[in-house]
Amino acid sequence: MLGNLTPEVQQTVLNRLNQRPELVMLDTMNFWMNEPFLPSLKEVIKQVDVLSINDEEARMLSGEYSLVKAAKSILAMGPTYLIIKKGEHGALLFNNDQIFFAPALPLEEVFDPTGAGDTFAGGFLGHLAQTQDHSFNNMKRAVIYGSAMASFCVEKFGPERLMNLSADTLEERVQEFVDLVQFEIDYA
Amino acid sequence: MLGNLTPEVQQTVLNRLNQRPELVMLDTMNFWMNEPFLPSLKEVIKQVDVLSINDEEARMLSGEYSLVKAAKSILAMGPTYLIIKKGEHGALLFNNDQIFFAPALPLEEVFDPTGAGDTFAGGFLGHLAQTQDHSFNNMKRAVIYGSAMASFCVEKFGPERLMNLSADTLEERVQEFVDLVQFEIDYA
Repeated sequence: MLGNLTPEVQQTVLNRLNQRPELVMLDTMNFWMNEPFLPSLKEVIKQVDVLSINDEEARMLSGEYSLVKAAKSILAMGPTYLIIKKGEHGALLFNNDQIFFAPALPLEEVFDPTGAGDTFAGGFLGHLAQTQDHSFNNMKRAVIYGSAMASFCVEKFGPERLMNLSADTLEERVQEFVDLVQFEIDYA
Repeated sequence: MLGNLTPEVQQTVLNRLNQRPELVMLDTMNFWMNEPFLPSLKEVIKQVDVLSINDEEARMLSGEYSLVKAAKSILAMGPTYLIIKKGEHGALLFNNDQIFFAPALPLEEVFDPTGAGDTFAGGFLGHLAQTQDHSFNNMKRAVIYGSAMASFCVEKFGPERLMNLSADTLEERVQEFVDLVQFEIDYA
């Protein structure tokens, strides 16, 4: 997981690895999408499997307002998967021929959104590391686990809510995501 | 379906019905949530089954920023179901103990959003009228049909895209919604 730092540092980390990990995810932000950082950001993006950014950053990086067009343009830059985080409006996962949408859980109160993006990344990668399955179907689950973890993060200050979180409580929260979007269409 | 007009006109329509319909839905807007209209709006809202408004209006009507709190407050005003439309971010359906979230379909291009809300209402009520089933589960499907119809509406100017829409094309679009949010969690 290449956290949001200068692209040069992210590149250095990749260079120093004796063996390339099975999956490399990169997080970045608007600041690095300007000169003089943009060329080195594009260079490191080319080498990762998953890029995770927010909607504003996806629009900035691609120059496209439509997130569907933005995703096509960004996937053409190299990553196999793109996650576009939309905060309280959920997150989108793209590869070249599929889109998955995970809602954010409607919450009574958002106490402190600090760290929600990093918590999402942790939940997402934690699920992939635990299951060792990098298929699109399992990435969808990973997005849900990441979203569930992020929904806890915002409930208290800093990492407070995460420090005493049990696996059972997490599974209950994941079930809330299932219930939130579940519907069945009967074709006559 | 009480369209977005002065609450007095909506009340008059209700009063003139010899028999109350099985289901009454009301659409309204921010303008009527100010004095001198607000008291009559609240009076008519009390009498309907489904209230359909957008997120900004839900916040204005309830005085709550959290949509979960806003929904509780608005459901206490009388309606059994509340739909909160979030435009490109989808729609939420609430009753007193359930929440359902329907995404908006990520589109390459939004040509003209005019009429999307009314098209949503038409698709929603069309599905309920056709199926004659007012359960929460069927209302979820109705929200998906409404969202699918709205996704066509914005693709062309005014009602152009809707005028030659076939049932098959609609079903294909509904399937895109299914694919967009579908995931399976395996509990170990």
